[in-house]
Amino acid sequence: MSAVPGPSPFYLGIDLGGTNIKSGVVDDDGHVLSFLSLETEAELGPEAGLDHLAEAGRRAVAASGVSWDQIAGVGLGSPGTMDLGAGMLLEPPNLPGWDNLPIRQLLSDRLKKATVLQNDGNAAAYGEYWTGAGKGAHSLVMFTLGTGIGCGIVLDGLILEGRHSHGAECGHIIVQMENARRCSCGAYGHLEAYASATALVKRALEALAEDPAPSRLRQLDPETITSRAIAEAAAAGDELAGRLMRDTAHYLAVGAVSLMHTIDPDLVLFGGGMINAGQSLLDAIRQDVRRMAFPIPAARTRIEFASLGEEAGFVGAAGWARKVLSRTP
Amino acid sequence: MSAVPGPSPFYLGIDLGGTNIKSGVVDDDGHVLSFLSLETEAELGPEAGLDHLAEAGRRAVAASGVSWDQIAGVGLGSPGTMDLGAGMLLEPPNLPGWDNLPIRQLLSDRLKKATVLQNDGNAAAYGEYWTGAGKGAHSLVMFTLGTGIGCGIVLDGLILEGRHSHGAECGHIIVQMENARRCSCGAYGHLEAYASATALVKRALEALAEDPAPSRLRQLDPETITSRAIAEAAAAGDELAGRLMRDTAHYLAVGAVSLMHTIDPDLVLFGGGMINAGQSLLDAIRQDVRRMAFPIPAARTRIEFASLGEEAGFVGAAGWARKVLSRTP
Repeated sequence: MSAVPGPSPFYLGIDLGGTNIKSGVVDDDGHVLSFLSLETEAELGPEAGLDHLAEAGRRAVAASGVSWDQIAGVGLGSPGTMDLGAGMLLEPPNLPGWDNLPIRQLLSDRLKKATVLQNDGNAAAYGEYWTGAGKGAHSLVMFTLGTGIGCGIVLDGLILEGRHSHGAECGHIIVQMENARRCSCGAYGHLEAYASATALVKRALEALAEDPAPSRLRQLDPETITSRAIAEAAAAGDELAGRLMRDTAHYLAVGAVSLMHTIDPDLVLFGGGMINAGQSLLDAIRQDVRRMAFPIPAARTRIEFASLGEEAGFVGAAGWARKVLSRTP
Repeated sequence: MSAVPGPSPFYLGIDLGGTNIKSGVVDDDGHVLSFLSLETEAELGPEAGLDHLAEAGRRAVAASGVSWDQIAGVGLGSPGTMDLGAGMLLEPPNLPGWDNLPIRQLLSDRLKKATVLQNDGNAAAYGEYWTGAGKGAHSLVMFTLGTGIGCGIVLDGLILEGRHSHGAECGHIIVQMENARRCSCGAYGHLEAYASATALVKRALEALAEDPAPSRLRQLDPETITSRAIAEAAAAGDELAGRLMRDTAHYLAVGAVSLMHTIDPDLVLFGGGMINAGQSLLDAIRQDVRRMAFPIPAARTRIEFASLGEEAGFVGAAGWARKVLSRTP
């Protein structure tokens, strides 16, 4: 994929995940000039991983129609834990063995470009803020719904990184204290333990075991039930699946309301694979937010789906490089 | 009360509450030169209330040893709801009848001084940040524990006001979804419904009715049980009261952890009357935060009691006037 390059300078964004590396080049207006995905092969360790990152970056530039010299900087989004100030990965659960890795400097050395590091959830939020569904907002909170729940907060153009690089870990706010579900992080009652795709599937399996109601989900091998299959069954009128999706919307609204009563942003965005469930999910989230939030934020805060899809991460990483390296407002 | 005036300019701070108006003068370093309290008599309506505010301000200046001309500006802290940008009270539940009141301008007209308006919870947090337990912190979250739970967030020297003046309403984050307690605001499962002084008393009355355990609280007329009486009974070794205080600490830790996983501040402060319960309450909060938060913020985020007591509100309002009017960093 390539497009006519727009205004220079250009930035390379790389979105490092446990499974895939997504990379691309954007122009100074945030238009995507190239986008590709490689396997991370995280299990090969950080040396091979850094080679993959550099390779993903070089290929994205080659595909963009922009010369290497025109790339003004590189933004890398990565799962945590990390020390953003030091540009280090600390103990990332999704990248086992990549501990205490000065990844920003190591990637910069390989690519010979100024490089910035950002948390992946923050980068996605910044991407939407810069060129996606958050364009024009002063402040936004974004939840990325997948295996877990990523989050990012942008306030007046700045990412809320936090003092220990743990800002906007809002999948891990506590929404239930008693008889609470266990989160993938090991703690109890976190939003992610209720509303992630993984949690949805777990709740579906429980419901199928406990609830005698008929459901087309029973025709599936339990091992193969996905959040997508549940959303499709709900869309086709399956009552049990519909209840599961409605509960998911409620949990997401609970997260949105708690963030509205803390950050009070212009906009709350939901992104990630689960938003493929479509308008009915968004409508249900909105309905519960309106019911549960204070009247003024309930009436004024926009609740929307993200628009950049899987490009949000690298676009946001590139945008953050642009912000930090060029000091562009 | 008066002290030798320190560096000029001087600022007048006024903390408007449903019951009392607290006012005082501070110097440019935040030292308190005067402090007094008047009754609000909110039920007399906003005209009388504005007269009381102006009177409280004039008396505080007279008591300070600083001449009226040396007052560079006025900061007013008030309970919401409000529109900070417009300087308006909207529909403040604690000031019935003071609706849609351009209070900033009206007070400025009466005092003939530049005036800024701030939310009371935000002002208290800013006071602690400027001259109290938060001095030197980059960012803090403060919970003020009283009849309700007020909150304020300071990030790199700026108050997180939110886009609709609803930032830091963290007493109203949702901590329980199922079988949740009803909050004073009418919604369910809010932190305030579990951890405020009012909620503590309610839980005590429930426990006394349901739990046959002996307790010195049974010697009190149920109508007269206060959070202070419960804290004192706990300190004296009363088991049931101790459990109630331990639960309170847990709920407060839940609030702290959710804010640490959202804002990730240097410091979480607890202020308000309930901190008179003392070190055992703080120790219990800390213990649960360490257990429930992610390892890095758990190890590095300081959890402390506020230090300015009932002066935090007017000191913070004055400090915010100084910040906004003088553009002092």
